[in-house]
Amino acid sequence: MKETKIILSDKEIPKKWYNIMADMPNLPKPPLHPGTKEPIGPNDLSAIFPMALIEQEVSQERWIDIPEEVLDIYSLWRPSPLFRAHRLEKALNTPAKIYYKYEGVSPAGSHKPNTSIPQAYYNKQAGIKRIATETGAGQWGSSMALAGNLFGMEVTVYMVKVSYGQKPYRRIAMETWGATVHASPSAVTQSGKKALEADPDNPGSLGLAISEAVEDAATHSDTNYALGSVLNHVLLHQTVIGLEAQKQFELVNDYPDIIIGCCGGGSNLAGISFPFLRDKIHGRDLRVIAVEPASCPTLTKGEFRYDYGDVAGLTPFLMMYTLGHDFIPPGIHAGGLRYHADAPLVCQLYHDGLMEAKACHQMGVFEAALLFARTEAIIPAPETAHAIKGAIDEALLCKEEGKEKTILFNLSGHGYLDLQAYADYMDGKLSDYEYPDEKIKEALSKLPVF
Amino acid sequence: MKETKIILSDKEIPKKWYNIMADMPNLPKPPLHPGTKEPIGPNDLSAIFPMALIEQEVSQERWIDIPEEVLDIYSLWRPSPLFRAHRLEKALNTPAKIYYKYEGVSPAGSHKPNTSIPQAYYNKQAGIKRIATETGAGQWGSSMALAGNLFGMEVTVYMVKVSYGQKPYRRIAMETWGATVHASPSAVTQSGKKALEADPDNPGSLGLAISEAVEDAATHSDTNYALGSVLNHVLLHQTVIGLEAQKQFELVNDYPDIIIGCCGGGSNLAGISFPFLRDKIHGRDLRVIAVEPASCPTLTKGEFRYDYGDVAGLTPFLMMYTLGHDFIPPGIHAGGLRYHADAPLVCQLYHDGLMEAKACHQMGVFEAALLFARTEAIIPAPETAHAIKGAIDEALLCKEEGKEKTILFNLSGHGYLDLQAYADYMDGKLSDYEYPDEKIKEALSKLPVF
Repeated sequence: MKETKIILSDKEIPKKWYNIMADMPNLPKPPLHPGTKEPIGPNDLSAIFPMALIEQEVSQERWIDIPEEVLDIYSLWRPSPLFRAHRLEKALNTPAKIYYKYEGVSPAGSHKPNTSIPQAYYNKQAGIKRIATETGAGQWGSSMALAGNLFGMEVTVYMVKVSYGQKPYRRIAMETWGATVHASPSAVTQSGKKALEADPDNPGSLGLAISEAVEDAATHSDTNYALGSVLNHVLLHQTVIGLEAQKQFELVNDYPDIIIGCCGGGSNLAGISFPFLRDKIHGRDLRVIAVEPASCPTLTKGEFRYDYGDVAGLTPFLMMYTLGHDFIPPGIHAGGLRYHADAPLVCQLYHDGLMEAKACHQMGVFEAALLFARTEAIIPAPETAHAIKGAIDEALLCKEEGKEKTILFNLSGHGYLDLQAYADYMDGKLSDYEYPDEKIKEALSKLPVF
Repeated sequence: MKETKIILSDKEIPKKWYNIMADMPNLPKPPLHPGTKEPIGPNDLSAIFPMALIEQEVSQERWIDIPEEVLDIYSLWRPSPLFRAHRLEKALNTPAKIYYKYEGVSPAGSHKPNTSIPQAYYNKQAGIKRIATETGAGQWGSSMALAGNLFGMEVTVYMVKVSYGQKPYRRIAMETWGATVHASPSAVTQSGKKALEADPDNPGSLGLAISEAVEDAATHSDTNYALGSVLNHVLLHQTVIGLEAQKQFELVNDYPDIIIGCCGGGSNLAGISFPFLRDKIHGRDLRVIAVEPASCPTLTKGEFRYDYGDVAGLTPFLMMYTLGHDFIPPGIHAGGLRYHADAPLVCQLYHDGLMEAKACHQMGVFEAALLFARTEAIIPAPETAHAIKGAIDEALLCKEEGKEKTILFNLSGHGYLDLQAYADYMDGKLSDYEYPDEKIKEALSKLPVF
């Protein structure tokens, strides 16, 4: 019997997160206040974030302790298994060794609870009673609902109205974990009311949902806001993925030549790659590849400059590869990758040549997803399938070149709640879409210049 | 940090299944030919089953080797984790120790692949190219689709038409794994055509879907039929669950006082309990409890007698606790427990006092499911929630009596694809239903007497 899973015991869950800011050759430029355009300080953030998370946001300590209470909850699904993809390798007839770290084992089905749990914990410690957040299709909202519930906190989720209606399952999951879910725009906030007055049939957008959640948090003293990607502390929490993978590779006496993650905001890619990137920064030969959709090619076609983190322009300016904050990506099935920019940490590392990026088309991504489901049995989320596509491409290159490389990718979530996308693909209803360069230029031309 | 998960390595997957027929004080009475009413022989079954499975069906060998090829696929998710339910215990404030074995980690989300994989394997070995089977909501059909796909076999699933329309997700999962799915009644078989001629709007039933699948298998020489529960070889394959649990309890130096499983056909209950029942047969103090819905109370209100295994009366007579093969249970959400009888092995053990049974009402079951989701984070399948309800009841009894018992239950599947049931429960749309005794009497009065 071949060894398929490399597993660790509860005792081997990492006790510290790894902060890549301690090792980066160049730190990201600081976030700027949207009014003064001066670097923002901790006080600017304290209205909506607890101080412990603000400290993590700016910390340059290499190792940050994971609280005992967070470890207790992590142990419900962590350490997650590392799989050797024997069947996929065989189907590709590649000399490459393909490994994947499976984060879909979390109760919410993705890597998102790695950060929703500590975010709920630190807010609870700070005396906060309620978390307001936004969600698109519901992957982040359900993870935050789960986390709030486990710490006995209320969670209010503003869910983009079109998803609220069309994708009821993740909404029901949020409610099952006790959260209150509003279709956004809602009549609960001023931002929502204003949008509804202008157009009662407004289908909502992530930008509007963010506005509602931030307004809710800013106008209730017992309530904070939580974000599922982009920020430094979110990426920090995700490093448990890569830290576990390092131990698992030690157990099989191997080390990846190539690490691949899909990239929307960048948190799952950061999670699996940052601990290994530390080795690369110190000289190790290693490639890290961000795979993004050709319909939202932020790293591959965006510009590295200051932009707002949200569509509505409520957040600080962040230094990112961006397509412009009013860029509206087409409605591809990988909803979690439809973000106009990327996390500042990921952007800086990409800028400094420590990461690569490639953009993939939707049809090729679903072809890869189907091959994976039919060889490795797990049905992946459409977002995750971008990483699979990236891994398959590299494995086929190894075959061409006759090289036995070791490839690791992050299987960041399962696709149980995304099966309609598979039906659409199999029924020939999907197509490729590449965002036209001229449209990107136009969106970027509207950005302020610093 | 408390220990939450008890895990085993790939190397500790059991290499043999445990056959309880080697230890039962009384073997079940033999299946009878529906025509002659004489015990059926291997040849009667060979038209639709491979000889290796027929041999397992009648074997009295205690240990039966698991083929290497099956172990390789088991290792995609097995050994499954055993969890200590610390948070649930705390919420109940019980001195009891509650453990659950989580079978939802399989790619199909339930225990069903434990048997679909070996069934596909033995059919492949016998030169069979295609499997025909039926499915209600799709739990078994998707497991068989997965298994067929991994062995390169075609799978044709007859899915009850009303579910085909209302529950598309499991149908899409089957298609993602390459299966062909027909809404039943279909125009593909004579049974289907006949039903459609009589009523073009026939919504289908499990009985009719079985007829279609059996007809398909019987009329194509390259095609066999596969069943997801009830038969001895199916229960045999599920014993990997209990065998792993035994090793896991050894690791924590504990042993269950009470083992609980939900019971539809009985395969997941058999899987977790049979290896432990061997100890009970040889004198160990242990209770095993089958939990069934009050709307389909087969063990608690059925009669122990010969009946058909299917609604249409195509199968051999099996000695079972039955409510009558034309008993039509109400449409509760736990569709997998809507079977008119139970596996002959489970029935014999229950008859001999080696198992207990209790019936639970739907509202209490969902209340238990919600408490579980909000403490242990995993959202369970509605069927599985019956086992949780049983475990909670026993844990509360321990609290009343001040006893520190060890309770083990089988968390047989997750509820990602059953979330509508949770919405219905939270929206107050569900109710209790207990099948009236007089209706059961009427159904039983129609059975032939032997």
